[in-house]
Amino acid sequence: MNLINESRFFATMQEQAHIGATEDGGLSRPALSEADVKVRQWFKDKTLQAGLEYSQDGAGNISALLRSDDASAKTLLIGSHLDSVVHGGRFDGALGVLSAFEVLRTIKDTELSLPFHLECISFTDEESRHIGLLGSSALSGNITTEAFLNLRSSQTELAEGMARIGITQESIINAKRDPSTLLGYLEVHIEQGTRLESSGIDIGIVTAIVGIRGMWLTFKGEAAHAGTQAILDRKDAMLGASHFTIAARQLVLDQYLPGVVNVGHIELKPGAFNIVPAEVTLAVEFRHGDADILEAMKLDLETIARNTAEKLGLEVEVAHIENASPAPMSDTMMKYLENACDTVGCSHTRLMSFAGHDSQNMAPITDSAMFFVPSQDGISHNPMEYTTPEDCVNAANVMLQTVLNIAGLK
Amino acid sequence: MNLINESRFFATMQEQAHIGATEDGGLSRPALSEADVKVRQWFKDKTLQAGLEYSQDGAGNISALLRSDDASAKTLLIGSHLDSVVHGGRFDGALGVLSAFEVLRTIKDTELSLPFHLECISFTDEESRHIGLLGSSALSGNITTEAFLNLRSSQTELAEGMARIGITQESIINAKRDPSTLLGYLEVHIEQGTRLESSGIDIGIVTAIVGIRGMWLTFKGEAAHAGTQAILDRKDAMLGASHFTIAARQLVLDQYLPGVVNVGHIELKPGAFNIVPAEVTLAVEFRHGDADILEAMKLDLETIARNTAEKLGLEVEVAHIENASPAPMSDTMMKYLENACDTVGCSHTRLMSFAGHDSQNMAPITDSAMFFVPSQDGISHNPMEYTTPEDCVNAANVMLQTVLNIAGLK
Repeated sequence: MNLINESRFFATMQEQAHIGATEDGGLSRPALSEADVKVRQWFKDKTLQAGLEYSQDGAGNISALLRSDDASAKTLLIGSHLDSVVHGGRFDGALGVLSAFEVLRTIKDTELSLPFHLECISFTDEESRHIGLLGSSALSGNITTEAFLNLRSSQTELAEGMARIGITQESIINAKRDPSTLLGYLEVHIEQGTRLESSGIDIGIVTAIVGIRGMWLTFKGEAAHAGTQAILDRKDAMLGASHFTIAARQLVLDQYLPGVVNVGHIELKPGAFNIVPAEVTLAVEFRHGDADILEAMKLDLETIARNTAEKLGLEVEVAHIENASPAPMSDTMMKYLENACDTVGCSHTRLMSFAGHDSQNMAPITDSAMFFVPSQDGISHNPMEYTTPEDCVNAANVMLQTVLNIAGLK
Repeated sequence: MNLINESRFFATMQEQAHIGATEDGGLSRPALSEADVKVRQWFKDKTLQAGLEYSQDGAGNISALLRSDDASAKTLLIGSHLDSVVHGGRFDGALGVLSAFEVLRTIKDTELSLPFHLECISFTDEESRHIGLLGSSALSGNITTEAFLNLRSSQTELAEGMARIGITQESIINAKRDPSTLLGYLEVHIEQGTRLESSGIDIGIVTAIVGIRGMWLTFKGEAAHAGTQAILDRKDAMLGASHFTIAARQLVLDQYLPGVVNVGHIELKPGAFNIVPAEVTLAVEFRHGDADILEAMKLDLETIARNTAEKLGLEVEVAHIENASPAPMSDTMMKYLENACDTVGCSHTRLMSFAGHDSQNMAPITDSAMFFVPSQDGISHNPMEYTTPEDCVNAANVMLQTVLNIAGLK
């Protein structure tokens, strides 16, 4: 059985953790920042030092390539992202890229011949500082000029960032890759949850990246003097918001697990101690990995909102927001992953990913799969983020074995 | 039976309604504004034209006085306020002052001799634009320099306003009146509620001005990723806020009617679709006319907050705010009022006032009472405010008859 070079792998993980490091052991490498530019240069140097080919596409996605002897072969992409949130941790994204990078180096060391090009890719802006999943959205052909009108950062910030790495709006839009040249996409990531840790399982095989939907719910009652208006005569919008919040949670617990729902923001008008609330707006988000179930959740949540309003003599306005469709992972790839786990000796389970990842963009264009390793206390996007050395090694070895399985090698 | 002069009374009500009038039939006469200055000058002119004595005290309270033949007699105050909220209505306050004014004129017309001085008073800033119930607070000796550090308006606004009517911070603080010179205080006001209208009763005798208490409740949970954090693992502060809001209302309905409770404002942190709320702060206000019951409500509401937090694994911080103590009205005065209603032929009932009024400041220093006449649809602080001519006449005639009863006349 081939295994990765642990000490080389750990050294590489250590090196990247110094780039954009914060004093508390975390790191800040927002996409297209100076720190991101540094980690990109470091990756390029490592790639060339390892005797691999380096490239950057029009969206700033950077790759190390281990070319197959068969020039017409398709390409298997493996990777994740080297950018981080502001003041984040050293494992989110980096573990996936450097596990993949170590897999390339290990296979290069063994001089095994692969029937596909193997490309370790680090996607631009997975943390969506500027444009949601910028790099994989561009590569999968999902970025048009419209995306640049709805930036999460500012025009100036994005322009400065693009200039730093020599890309443009035009080059991003043109970064679409021909799916017929791709064999698949694989990614390993920290779990950002506690399911693996609490069950003591090594590897979580992702069945789907959940779809995310949102809605703005506005309950409308009537402002009234909170002294002189008797309680039973009120049309209290806050009461609608309260009943909805509780009922929505109960609905998901009763019928839609492992789906989730969140009331993440609330705004109340007019907003004074002595005025009965006239209008309360809730930001509601819900997630599930199955498109039909997600649609059913949407209808049920809307029904709860309407029934709540009716019972309380309120009006309700519902504005749905389509955020992301569920992205089912490839069955074939999941099986390769499970076989690899068995070979390496890692216990495994199937689970949904409740966070978004680049694989949700890749799944519609090529056979994609993803697996998680445990993240201590489920912490992520935080300097406290931690995955044990053993779990990091599992990540890289399962990735290596999966690539070999796909290649028909052992 | 003596009755007021209806046509003179209506004419006076009409005249005042033109001062600070808004196009939609309402009026804007915030305390110490230019419109307030105008209505003060108008009141002074009317007073002198009626052959009554005019005066203004250090707090800007303005009075028309019908002096008793007995120079050493005490003074019975009757009145209300001529200021309004911004864009308010033409009855709130004005009806009370002008009913009282008409009572003075009627008694002067009859040449009846009263055993007390009868003073029609219009209190400064009842609507609490600058300082809560400024005029009656000053007259009852409840304003110190501290009040000027916690203005509801700005230092500049108050300074400009005081200059307009020739009062100062010092004159306000020194406007306390010797309670031993007072016989009592009577006020008529529109109900600002629908209890009289819906029961078809002419007059509501106020038993107490309710006490008002507030608290800031902060439920504290933990911010978490609304995708990856399973629902049952969350510490969702919004859930605490929702359960509290519902339970607090139910508590008052079950145990504390006719008391009221309101959750009038809410603030949530950090506030995003995809983040489980870490912290939710509620502005809670509750009212009751009985001090002991108000205290029991406070304890019960706090207990609900703590139990809610405990059940949901949250923390809760409670910051109480003392707004106003309940002010029970004088039994003697209530009986005079009821007798007057019977004489005039008005049906009557006893009720609490859930809104604050100057009588809450007067009650601790002199025998005070208050009565309401119906307000259409309970509307107040609104240009749509309306009380029928018949109810306005009832207000003035009941006030007249009460004054005569107190004087031992018929």
